[in-house]
Amino acid sequence: MTRIPPCSARAVELAAGDELVIIDPEGQQVSDLVAFNPDDLAEYLSSGRSIDYASRMFLTTGDTLYSNRSRPMFTLLEDTCGRHDFTLTPCSKEMFEKIYGETEGRPGCEGNLAMALAPWGIDRDRVPVAFNVFMHVAVDGSTGEIAVLPPLSRPGAYLRLRAEMPLVAAMTACSAGQSNNFRYKPIDYRVDRLAPRPSKS
Amino acid sequence: MTRIPPCSARAVELAAGDELVIIDPEGQQVSDLVAFNPDDLAEYLSSGRSIDYASRMFLTTGDTLYSNRSRPMFTLLEDTCGRHDFTLTPCSKEMFEKIYGETEGRPGCEGNLAMALAPWGIDRDRVPVAFNVFMHVAVDGSTGEIAVLPPLSRPGAYLRLRAEMPLVAAMTACSAGQSNNFRYKPIDYRVDRLAPRPSKS
Repeated sequence: MTRIPPCSARAVELAAGDELVIIDPEGQQVSDLVAFNPDDLAEYLSSGRSIDYASRMFLTTGDTLYSNRSRPMFTLLEDTCGRHDFTLTPCSKEMFEKIYGETEGRPGCEGNLAMALAPWGIDRDRVPVAFNVFMHVAVDGSTGEIAVLPPLSRPGAYLRLRAEMPLVAAMTACSAGQSNNFRYKPIDYRVDRLAPRPSKS
Repeated sequence: MTRIPPCSARAVELAAGDELVIIDPEGQQVSDLVAFNPDDLAEYLSSGRSIDYASRMFLTTGDTLYSNRSRPMFTLLEDTCGRHDFTLTPCSKEMFEKIYGETEGRPGCEGNLAMALAPWGIDRDRVPVAFNVFMHVAVDGSTGEIAVLPPLSRPGAYLRLRAEMPLVAAMTACSAGQSNNFRYKPIDYRVDRLAPRPSKS
């Protein structure tokens, strides 16, 4: 088990078949998840494709997360929370300024994801709309108004995803107060290496 | 006035201050709009940022469309339709296969946008979630289910946007049957060049 400290991010390489388990150890915390094809960074996890193919804004067990090339990147295998979405970009320095009036320049999930992904050559400009694990986005269907509410995740809630292709994935312990009810907590993750590993010859 | 023939796309460069008018001449047609910073293609029109800062899925007069760097790209000045969204990716060959069972390989808005933007070095992988002008996406707030309904745009409906920075923008006459009630129609656009032009010295 790896702990992602509050307001930070970690990246991990996955083989096809590996299972990634994202856990909210204390409850009411959000983790922004992004992913790339490590062999061709122009292929990335796509909000628009995933929403389109599911015809649903909230994704859960049985749903697939697609790349911008319409290839399955993840299958959601098990979900003890039931609320995740794909609507908003990761929080960022600029978002903190605009929405919260913050001026101290915290990097937010966007900056933390870019730092975690720097070894793969992925910078801020490439950080896409994230799959917002445990995030509680409420939508008013008539007006389209969006509200970010305290997550529904209880302590120990988890989401288990299977990688459907080789991936570099990155996750955060979210830095945005609205997302985690203004309590900045850690996130845990574990990788179950179920795929045969390539032998080093 | 420039006509975008059914199932095709056109690109245009805009200076800051120029106004782009997108018109649905026959009614019930959708136009996918994307935009880039022509001096740095890594900056593009961002669905997640724009939804985040508006806190609304449906955008209209007075709203701003932002880049992934949180800079204003467009302001929506005038809107005689009232329904546009930023949820789904442009239709594509792969989407036609998955959703409609089509096998003839039509390029869709994604392929058409990439062809229109090829002179700027923008390929399919860089085509982001589009601002779906005149698209009628209905969302069930409780389940998150999404339905694509016939557009609310009447013949002659238009959306007027002001470019807030230099842009290369591209628009389509949408190729997806669900988006336009299975009648594939043209889109018109006009650019009102209100900004002082740089002198060729």
